Amino acid sequence: METTNPTPAVAGNNMAFFFNPASIAVIGASANPAKPGGRPLLALSKRGYAGRIYPVNPRHREIAGLQCYPAVTDIPGEVDMAIIAVPAAMVPEAVARCGEKGVKAAVVFTSGFAEVGPQGAALQREMLDRAREKGIRILGPNCLGLVNLGKAVMASFAGIVDVEPVTPRTLGFVTQSGVFGATIYLQATEKGVGFSSFVSVGNEADLEFADFVSYLLDDDETGVIGGYLEGARDGAKLRAAAERALRLSKPLLIMKVGRTRAGSRAASSHTGSLAGDDQVYDAFFRQMGIIRIESLNELTSFVTVFRSGRRPAGKNVAVLSGSGGAGVVIADKCESLGLNVPELQGKTRRLLEEYLPAFASPRNPVDLTAQAETDPRLAGKCLAALAADDNIHTVIVNVFLTDDAAPAVTRDIIDFYRSTDKVVVMVSWVAYGSKVVPSYLALIREAGIPVLPDGLEAARAVAALTWYQEKVVKAKPAPPETVAAVPAVPELAGSGPLTEYQAKRILAAYGIPVTREGLAACADEAVELARRIGYPVALKVQSPGIAHKTDAGGVRLNLSGDEQVRQAYDEIMDNVARHAPDADIHGVLVQEMAAGGVEVIVGMTRDPVFGPVLMFGLGGIFVEALGDVSFRIAPLSRPDAEEMVREIKGYRVLQGMRGRPPVDVEALMDVILKVSRLVTDYADRIAELDINPLVVSSRGAVVVDALVVQRDE
Amino acid sequence: METTNPTPAVAGNNMAFFFNPASIAVIGASANPAKPGGRPLLALSKRGYAGRIYPVNPRHREIAGLQCYPAVTDIPGEVDMAIIAVPAAMVPEAVARCGEKGVKAAVVFTSGFAEVGPQGAALQREMLDRAREKGIRILGPNCLGLVNLGKAVMASFAGIVDVEPVTPRTLGFVTQSGVFGATIYLQATEKGVGFSSFVSVGNEADLEFADFVSYLLDDDETGVIGGYLEGARDGAKLRAAAERALRLSKPLLIMKVGRTRAGSRAASSHTGSLAGDDQVYDAFFRQMGIIRIESLNELTSFVTVFRSGRRPAGKNVAVLSGSGGAGVVIADKCESLGLNVPELQGKTRRLLEEYLPAFASPRNPVDLTAQAETDPRLAGKCLAALAADDNIHTVIVNVFLTDDAAPAVTRDIIDFYRSTDKVVVMVSWVAYGSKVVPSYLALIREAGIPVLPDGLEAARAVAALTWYQEKVVKAKPAPPETVAAVPAVPELAGSGPLTEYQAKRILAAYGIPVTREGLAACADEAVELARRIGYPVALKVQSPGIAHKTDAGGVRLNLSGDEQVRQAYDEIMDNVARHAPDADIHGVLVQEMAAGGVEVIVGMTRDPVFGPVLMFGLGGIFVEALGDVSFRIAPLSRPDAEEMVREIKGYRVLQGMRGRPPVDVEALMDVILKVSRLVTDYADRIAELDINPLVVSSRGAVVVDALVVQRDE
Repeated sequence: METTNPTPAVAGNNMAFFFNPASIAVIGASANPAKPGGRPLLALSKRGYAGRIYPVNPRHREIAGLQCYPAVTDIPGEVDMAIIAVPAAMVPEAVARCGEKGVKAAVVFTSGFAEVGPQGAALQREMLDRAREKGIRILGPNCLGLVNLGKAVMASFAGIVDVEPVTPRTLGFVTQSGVFGATIYLQATEKGVGFSSFVSVGNEADLEFADFVSYLLDDDETGVIGGYLEGARDGAKLRAAAERALRLSKPLLIMKVGRTRAGSRAASSHTGSLAGDDQVYDAFFRQMGIIRIESLNELTSFVTVFRSGRRPAGKNVAVLSGSGGAGVVIADKCESLGLNVPELQGKTRRLLEEYLPAFASPRNPVDLTAQAETDPRLAGKCLAALAADDNIHTVIVNVFLTDDAAPAVTRDIIDFYRSTDKVVVMVSWVAYGSKVVPSYLALIREAGIPVLPDGLEAARAVAALTWYQEKVVKAKPAPPETVAAVPAVPELAGSGPLTEYQAKRILAAYGIPVTREGLAACADEAVELARRIGYPVALKVQSPGIAHKTDAGGVRLNLSGDEQVRQAYDEIMDNVARHAPDADIHGVLVQEMAAGGVEVIVGMTRDPVFGPVLMFGLGGIFVEALGDVSFRIAPLSRPDAEEMVREIKGYRVLQGMRGRPPVDVEALMDVILKVSRLVTDYADRIAELDINPLVVSSRGAVVVDALVVQRDE
Repeated sequence: METTNPTPAVAGNNMAFFFNPASIAVIGASANPAKPGGRPLLALSKRGYAGRIYPVNPRHREIAGLQCYPAVTDIPGEVDMAIIAVPAAMVPEAVARCGEKGVKAAVVFTSGFAEVGPQGAALQREMLDRAREKGIRILGPNCLGLVNLGKAVMASFAGIVDVEPVTPRTLGFVTQSGVFGATIYLQATEKGVGFSSFVSVGNEADLEFADFVSYLLDDDETGVIGGYLEGARDGAKLRAAAERALRLSKPLLIMKVGRTRAGSRAASSHTGSLAGDDQVYDAFFRQMGIIRIESLNELTSFVTVFRSGRRPAGKNVAVLSGSGGAGVVIADKCESLGLNVPELQGKTRRLLEEYLPAFASPRNPVDLTAQAETDPRLAGKCLAALAADDNIHTVIVNVFLTDDAAPAVTRDIIDFYRSTDKVVVMVSWVAYGSKVVPSYLALIREAGIPVLPDGLEAARAVAALTWYQEKVVKAKPAPPETVAAVPAVPELAGSGPLTEYQAKRILAAYGIPVTREGLAACADEAVELARRIGYPVALKVQSPGIAHKTDAGGVRLNLSGDEQVRQAYDEIMDNVARHAPDADIHGVLVQEMAAGGVEVIVGMTRDPVFGPVLMFGLGGIFVEALGDVSFRIAPLSRPDAEEMVREIKGYRVLQGMRGRPPVDVEALMDVILKVSRLVTDYADRIAELDINPLVVSSRGAVVVDALVVQRDE
C-alpha cells in the first residue's frame, strides 16, 4: 500500500456532516428500540438532538411519533447524514439513493462486507463506488457508528447511547473494535470521564481511524483523544494527525494491540488490516508523542489529570503521604517511570523539619506520620512549603481523609492548589462507610484538583503527562529550514543491490563521510590509488552480483605496501573468476583502513504502513545477541535522532568506556539525519539501506561499508 | 548483622499465644472506643472473641461491662496475651508486670521507641530485656497490632477491626507499614478477599516479619500469605520461611519497596531497617518462588484465582472472548508475561470452525463475534471443545453477560468448569444498571469459578500462578545428597586479598577447572614451567599488595619460547621493583593461554541481609555497558544455577553465534554450583570473590583469572 498520498477529499467540511448534521435519516428504521434501526431513533429523541430525524422504511408510516418515509428520496427536506441499517445486499442501493438525495455522510452499521471474505469485499467495493460517484463519505461498514454528545448526535446502536453522559466532555475516542470500544466508553463514563465523541470505524472502507482523529483535533470540546488501534491503514495520514496533535497540545493516547505473536495474528484476522511490526509502532508512538496505553485506567487517570489544565515544568515530583509505606510505593513508581523524586533542600527542608516530628522523613517522599492525626493542619503547612519550592514541578498528595480531619485538610489542599501553578494530584478514596468524606472529596474535585483512587495510577498519569509535555515543548516549530536542492544520485538507476562503492557515492552525495577510496580496474591503478590514499589499505571486489564479498575471496585487509596490493589484487581477481565466473565486475575498491572507534549500524527498511524506517544500533554482537536497536520513521527531526541514539541500552558504550573518550555523538546524529533525508528524497527508489559499520570515534564518523538495495520498478 | 542463626525460641508454641490466646488483658484500657486502649475491647466483644477479656487501668473499675483491674498482676485468672497501650515511658514496667503474671505474648501499640532516635532505642532495649527475662514474646512496639479473624482476636486499634469480615479467610497478611497495610486490608476486603490474619510488625524489636510469615504457614485457614516489606532483618530466616512455603504450596506475595533511589532512602528512614540492594531482593524472590507484587490488584486477583484450588499443568492459555479486541489485549498480555497462547489445532480447531462464522477467528484468542448475541449457547459449545484439548492448560473466558444471554451462558460456563480440571478465569463486569447480571455472576462465583473485572488482571494472575506452580514443581525435594567433606583451603588464613594463584588453588580444591599453571621463583623455573605447560604462556606477577598487575607492568601474554619467557620474567621483576618496591612478591605465575571461548564472570559478594550472593554475567563490555547480570543467594540448587544462566539478556551469546558452537552450559553451571558451595562452606572467611574471566566453550569451562578477598577477622 502506498502511503504518501493522504486522500485530499478528507477535509473538515465533509467530516462535519457526521458530527454536526442538520438532519439525519435512518434507513432501515425499526420500531423496536433493541434493533440497530431502532435504537438511534430513540436515543436521538431522548438526548435532545436538535435537527430533523427521518425514519426510512417502506413498511411503516410512522415510528416513535415521527413520520416514516418509504425511501430516502421521498424525504421532503435536505438530509445531511444517513444511518444505514439494512441487510448487506441492499446497502449499495441504499447508498446510491442517498447519493440521489444529496446526503453528505453515511454511517453504515451493517456487517457482511470485507470482514467475511472475497464476496463481502466485492460488495464493499460496490458500495464504495456508489458513494464516491456522489461524494458521500462513509463510516463503516460493520461498525457501531458514532456519537457526538455535545450535539446529541446518537448515531450508534451500541448500549453507550443509553448511558447518562458525563461532563466535562473531554475525551474523543476512536476505535477499530466496536465492542471493546463500547466497553471502554461505559467503564470510563462510570469513572467520571466525559466523552465528546465516540467513533467505531468498522471496516474503514472510506474514512479511517486517522481521519477521525484528525477531525477531533479541531473540535473545541475535545481535549484528549483516545483510541484503540489494531493497525493503521495509512501511516502518513496518521503521522500528519499526530504531528498536528502535538502542535495543538491535544494528547493522543492509543491502545495498540499486537505486541506479541499471538496478538498480531489475531489482530490481522480480526479486521483484515495490515498489522505493522510492533517495534515500528512503538517507535512511531514515541517519536510522535503518542502515549501508548495498556489499560483503561491509564486513559481515565490521564484525562483526569490533564483536564486540570496544568502542565509540569519539569520532571521533579514531591510526594506527600499520610502513610510512609504508600509514599515510598508512589516514589518508587515515579522514579521507575523516569520522573525524579529529589531530596528537598534549603528552605523547604528547614520548614518541613520544623513542622514534622524528629522521626518523620522531611526528605521526599514526605511522611506526615501519625502526627497528621493529631494535627490536621500539618498537611497544609507542608504543602505551603512545597508550593514555594521552585525545584518541585508536581506534587502528589496521598492523604487519607478521616471524618474529623476532612474539613481542615480539604480547605488547606484547596488553598494550596490555588496558591501554585504546579501540577497537583490527590490520591484518596472513601473509607469504609464514611458519609462525610465523599462530600469533601467532591469539594476538592470541584476546585479543579484531580483526585485518583490509587497512587500507582497517579504516578503513571504524572509520568505520561510529563513525558508528553516534553514532547510538546520539543515540537515547537523550528525556524524554517532553507530547503536544499535534492542531490543527484545517478547510481540509483535500476533495480536490485548496488555495489559498496556505488552506495558510498550516494551517501557521499548527501555529505555523509565515507572512507577515502577509489575504484581500480587493474593492479597498477590499485597501487596508484593506495599510494594516494596512504597505507594501510583494504581491497574489495565490486560487483552487484557478489553479495558476500568475503565469502567469494574478494576482500583483503590491512595491506601495507605496493607489492601486497598488487598481489592482493591478483588473488582477488583469481578467486572471483573461480567463485563467480559470470559476475559483472565493476573493479576493485581500494579503501583506507578506518582507525579505531565504535562500530555502529545505521540502516533503513520499508514498513508497509509507515514507509522508510531508520534503525540504529551498536554493531556486531550487541545487535545480534541483544537486538539492542532503536527505530524512527523518516523524516527525522534533530530531537528524533538524539532520542534514537540515547534510547539504546548500550548508549554508555558511546559515552566512552575503558578509558576511551566519548564518541562524537553530533557527527553520528548528523549521519542519521542525512540518511533520513536521502531515504525521504528517494523513497520511491530505495528499498533497503545498511551502513554497517559506521565507525564513530571522538574525531567523527565514517562509513566503512554500506549496502543499498533499489526498489523494483 | 549475622544472618545464619535464626532465634531458636521462635517455635510454634510461643507464637500461638498471639493468634489463639485463651485470655487477653488490655493494659491501658480506655472507655473511649476511638482510643488504642478502647477499640480492641469493643472489637473483641463485638466479633465474639470466646476467651476472657481483662481491661487493666487503675482509674476505672469497669469498662464496657467488663471488670477493670488496677494492674495485670491483679487479674485472678491466667493471662495468655497482653495488649499494651500505655505511654512509652511506662511500657518497660508494664512488660515486667506481665512477666510476673506469666503472660506469654505482648502486643505493644505504643510508639516513641527506636523509630524516634537513640533515646527511644534505649527504651526499646529496656522493654526487650524485661520481656526476655520472663520469656515474653513481643509484637511491636509502634505497630497497629494483629487480628486473627477465625478466633476473633481483634488485637488492633486500626479501623480494620470495624469492618465486616469476608469469607473464605484465605489471606494472611504481614506488614512493616501499619497504615499502608491497613489500607490494603480495607481495600482487599471490599474486593471480596477474606483475611485469616493481619499482623502489623512495627519496630520488630523481638518478633519480625519472617517469624509471622513462618507461623502463618502452619495455619490451616491461611492459603496465601501477603506482605508489605521495606527490609528483612534476618535473610536466613526469611529464606527458611520461603523455602518451607514452597514445599507447602502456600504462595507468598510480597510488595517490596525501595526499587529506586528515592524509595530506598525513604524506606530506610521509615523503619530504621536496613534495606538490602533491590537487585538482591529481586533475585531472592525469584529464587524462592515469592511473587513480587506492585499493586493491591495483583494480590486480590491472585487470591481469587488461587483459592479455586486449581493449578495449571503448563503455560498454554486459551482466550475466549466476546470482543475480538479484548481477546487480543488479553492474549498480548499473556504472552508478554511469558505464557503461551498457542494456535488451536486438530479437533479443537475443526470444532470451532464448525461453530463459528467464517469470518471469526477459530485460532487463539477465540473471537465469538456478534454471533454470540444471536446464539447464547455459542460460548458453551466452544468451551466444551477447549475442555477436551489437552494442549490447553488454562482458559480465560472474557464474556460480557447481557440480561438475555445470562441464564444460558451461566449454565454453560458452570458445566464447562465442572467438566475440566484446567484453570479457568472468567472476566466480566456488571453492565450499566443491570439488575439481572449480578445474580448470575454470583452463581458463577458460587460454583467456584474465579471472576475478575479486568482482562489484564486475569492475565497477570494466571501468569503469576503458572510461574509459581513451576517453582513448586521444581522445588520437590531432591534425593538426599551425600554430603561431601569440606575441602581444606589453607590459603584462607588471614585477611585482605589473596593472589590470583592462591585464589585459583582454592577454586581447584573445589574441583573447579583452572588454567594449567605454576609459580616460578626465578627465570629458569619459569622456563621449565612453560615447557611443561606448553607454549604459548602468560606470565603474571603474584603479590597480594599488587591489585592491578597489568598497571604495574606485571603481566606478559602470548609468550611463545624460552627466550621470550626469560626476558618477560626479568622485565616483570624490573617493573615491579620500580612500581611497588615494598610489595611482598610470591613469585611469577606461568600460565597457559586459554584458547578461544566466551568470557563470563562468576562472582560473589556479601549482602548485609542475605549473606553470600552469587553474580553471573558475560564478561567485558556486556557487564560494563549494560549491567546484564543475574544474582542468586547461596547456596544454590541446580535449577537456581540454570535460571541464573538463562536469565541474562545475552544468553544467546552462549547458545552459539556467528557460526560458533554453543558453549558447554552444564560445565558453566557446575562452576557456579561449586562456587556456591565454596562461599557457603567458607562464608565466615570470604568477603568477595571474582572469577573474571571464566572462559566457557564447547569443550568446557576454565578459570583464567580470579580474585578472592578474605573477611577481616
